[in-house]
Amino acid sequence: MQEKIEQLKAALATAVDLERASYVLEWDQEVLMPEGGAQARADQRATLDELAHRYYTADEVGKLLDELVPHLDELDPASDEAGQIRVAKREYDQRVNVPADLVNQISQTSSLAIQAWQKARAEDDFPAFEPLLSKLVDLRQQWAACFDVGENSYDALLDYWEAGMTYDLIAEVFAGVKPPLVELVEAIVAHQDAVDPLVLEGHFGHDEQMAFSREVTEALGYDYERGRLDLAAHPFTIPFSSDDVRITTRVFEDNVVSCLMSSIHEGGHGMHAQNTSPDYYRTVLDDCKSMAIGESQSRFFENVLGRSKPFWRYWYPRLQETFPAMKSRSFDAFYKALNQSQPSLVRVEADEVTYGLHIILRFELENDLFNGRVKVADLPKEWNERMEAYLGLTPPNDAEGVLQDIHWAAGYFGYFPDYLLGTMWSVQLWEKMQQDIPDVVAQIESGKFDAVLGWQVEQVHRHGNKFNLPELSKKVLGGPLDWRPYMEYLKTKYGEIYGL
Amino acid sequence: MQEKIEQLKAALATAVDLERASYVLEWDQEVLMPEGGAQARADQRATLDELAHRYYTADEVGKLLDELVPHLDELDPASDEAGQIRVAKREYDQRVNVPADLVNQISQTSSLAIQAWQKARAEDDFPAFEPLLSKLVDLRQQWAACFDVGENSYDALLDYWEAGMTYDLIAEVFAGVKPPLVELVEAIVAHQDAVDPLVLEGHFGHDEQMAFSREVTEALGYDYERGRLDLAAHPFTIPFSSDDVRITTRVFEDNVVSCLMSSIHEGGHGMHAQNTSPDYYRTVLDDCKSMAIGESQSRFFENVLGRSKPFWRYWYPRLQETFPAMKSRSFDAFYKALNQSQPSLVRVEADEVTYGLHIILRFELENDLFNGRVKVADLPKEWNERMEAYLGLTPPNDAEGVLQDIHWAAGYFGYFPDYLLGTMWSVQLWEKMQQDIPDVVAQIESGKFDAVLGWQVEQVHRHGNKFNLPELSKKVLGGPLDWRPYMEYLKTKYGEIYGL
Repeated sequence: MQEKIEQLKAALATAVDLERASYVLEWDQEVLMPEGGAQARADQRATLDELAHRYYTADEVGKLLDELVPHLDELDPASDEAGQIRVAKREYDQRVNVPADLVNQISQTSSLAIQAWQKARAEDDFPAFEPLLSKLVDLRQQWAACFDVGENSYDALLDYWEAGMTYDLIAEVFAGVKPPLVELVEAIVAHQDAVDPLVLEGHFGHDEQMAFSREVTEALGYDYERGRLDLAAHPFTIPFSSDDVRITTRVFEDNVVSCLMSSIHEGGHGMHAQNTSPDYYRTVLDDCKSMAIGESQSRFFENVLGRSKPFWRYWYPRLQETFPAMKSRSFDAFYKALNQSQPSLVRVEADEVTYGLHIILRFELENDLFNGRVKVADLPKEWNERMEAYLGLTPPNDAEGVLQDIHWAAGYFGYFPDYLLGTMWSVQLWEKMQQDIPDVVAQIESGKFDAVLGWQVEQVHRHGNKFNLPELSKKVLGGPLDWRPYMEYLKTKYGEIYGL
Repeated sequence: MQEKIEQLKAALATAVDLERASYVLEWDQEVLMPEGGAQARADQRATLDELAHRYYTADEVGKLLDELVPHLDELDPASDEAGQIRVAKREYDQRVNVPADLVNQISQTSSLAIQAWQKARAEDDFPAFEPLLSKLVDLRQQWAACFDVGENSYDALLDYWEAGMTYDLIAEVFAGVKPPLVELVEAIVAHQDAVDPLVLEGHFGHDEQMAFSREVTEALGYDYERGRLDLAAHPFTIPFSSDDVRITTRVFEDNVVSCLMSSIHEGGHGMHAQNTSPDYYRTVLDDCKSMAIGESQSRFFENVLGRSKPFWRYWYPRLQETFPAMKSRSFDAFYKALNQSQPSLVRVEADEVTYGLHIILRFELENDLFNGRVKVADLPKEWNERMEAYLGLTPPNDAEGVLQDIHWAAGYFGYFPDYLLGTMWSVQLWEKMQQDIPDVVAQIESGKFDAVLGWQVEQVHRHGNKFNLPELSKKVLGGPLDWRPYMEYLKTKYGEIYGL
């Protein structure tokens, strides 16, 4: 059996290499590729993705899985061996149902759609993007039809990003969190004068912001000998291996923290990928495909840690040194401004409280789109109406509305809800970390982050893609994902800030 | 037959995509990859290169070539159709003789060797690089043994980079040029005081040098919407398609032109690749594999044009504006300093006259290495002795000696001689261009470069990989490569500068 597992790993190493090579082409495309490169890049990535698909679904892999899967129950479910088989089986099943030609079309179309989206966003021209987006939705419908998931085709997309997730499951969690969240948002809106957001504004140099972002992410434990921080329109993280994990950010020179908080967010993803067990190199366990687990890390570092008082007790004097304009602004005023909660248009700039409503909007809209209740051409109208209904705001243009995210252009549907699931879980992790490391808050206040990262590495990072969210939650916390600790955390923190 | 040619092109498109994807990984590795990425990058490139090899040598390709090659003489040899078959046949024959495992080993070893070379060069530590270099030479010996080229294994390497080239052929040309070249170098050495090289020295900002390099290359016709200029330890050019061609350069802040001249050199390669006929997209004709033709373009733009009086009549006032320290330095003094000829240690910084002797040294040393007359461990000693014998200089360290070039680390043996062959041919092209465009010198003096680029596009660039050097020389010039116009050009130009 051990021998067959080694054969399986060897057979899949080529697929993993091709997938990671495609990541390099993707990173280059989004960070620095000249415009003229689009067509060839689309063809090249389509070729790599199609070949990866073929290697993931090779006859040899199918045969080995047929032999190994029946013996899965003889293995410890938490063992690497069981993980290799379980994840290879999932990759195989997910892919073998989809014809290579369709995979190829999706890859090629999304490459072109990303270019079109960038242009449409810059020029606030949704109609120019619509034909490619429609084509992508059609292709994803065809893709979903390859799976046996009942009558809601959106379920196939949800399960793709998060093993075992369905519309019904997520809708139930969101139904739990939605009423108290709406209530909290309303209470905060009624106390807006408690926070002065202008405390974060001024002119803060591009290079200084990048340097400070680098300093902070490095102190948190992101390893620059095995990574890079670059600029991208929509910040993202991408691992070429655990020893070369690229993070990206963006700079707004009128805000002292937006670049930094993006960098910490992506740094969280980056550390997650950098600290995967080296035993998983070139295997299907190397790249954590659970979006919710991934987001638990980025949101933990960005929000639970990076917007906390203990964190800033250490970093605020350093921020003030880097940006002398901040010297006249008090710690309390800064802390409150950093955590300002206010309905706003752009998800990635949204605060911890209103963020959830951005996600619930996308989740419901995607579900309607894939069930034919909303047409692609009507997305701007639907988006704007729902923004008004949920957050009391109507986007002045599509660039700040339906065009704000890269995800749909990249063909990622069903991906958004995992952001909120991961955010909720990050708070559960933080509670457990405080139990396991009683002086963790004091350590953070004195700028020591080793124990924080060490805990996340031990509990989460090193496992890579071995466990899905329910499995890992049971292992680390002894129980499932729960929205209640998240709501408690929000109520306590924002109750204090807004004097509720 | 047309249908079979289309089948051949379709069959090879995947191989071309894989090759270009590997180029993207190579560019990233040399321009910006963090150190930690080396192992995974080596594995990924090895996988891509092995797969490209398999697709170039697929049974389908072999069968199509068996059917098409016998009918080659029914086609116009200058037609695209004939070119597609001829070049596919050469790629196939070159590759089918080499086992995929050996290709894989060479790719993997050279990835690691590039990292080791970078470190060894920085630390002046040849012994740390030697084991990987030895392994690469061994592997290239095994590679050469796969070909039927008579008793000199070096011939297989020469033919790989330049179709039809052999040691004997090149040795004959070099034998012709060597005596008058040595004579000219001696005459120049005796008149060193005619030129003051300090005219180029001072402090010239990094960003200003990069901006001026960009300005000049753009004016010459390098298209930045289909390319980028970045930094690299050893400048190089790499095409991901004709619509995304990356060039690189390096900056020495104490010299006003070294960054610029590197940029123009690579810009020459870049324009060559950018102007390949769009008809050749995703085919074997897209990427000119003749190093000599390639070098004729880089050397034409860098030297024949870029170090000429008419060129600088236009650009010198602009250089002086960008770098005010140059305002006190006369045109004549600048022109002479720019063309200073003096024996020196580093090939890429060598002048037009002594350059040939750097090449002849490498050509002879590689031939000795592959015929077992020189051992890898003895390369530093041999290098230094020959530098002394040819140019009267002994490198003070290996970083400025045997470690100066990336080529051997990349597994490129037999590549260097084509630099000199291309340099010679570039002068023949210039003579023909002057016949075809009688006022070309006046155009250059007034900063108009359209006709220059247009001529090169029409005569050389658009043909991509369709013709080898002898074929293209016959087509453009009506005759073969000749070293005499090159010697005449050098004697006239340097006779004037040095008052010989």
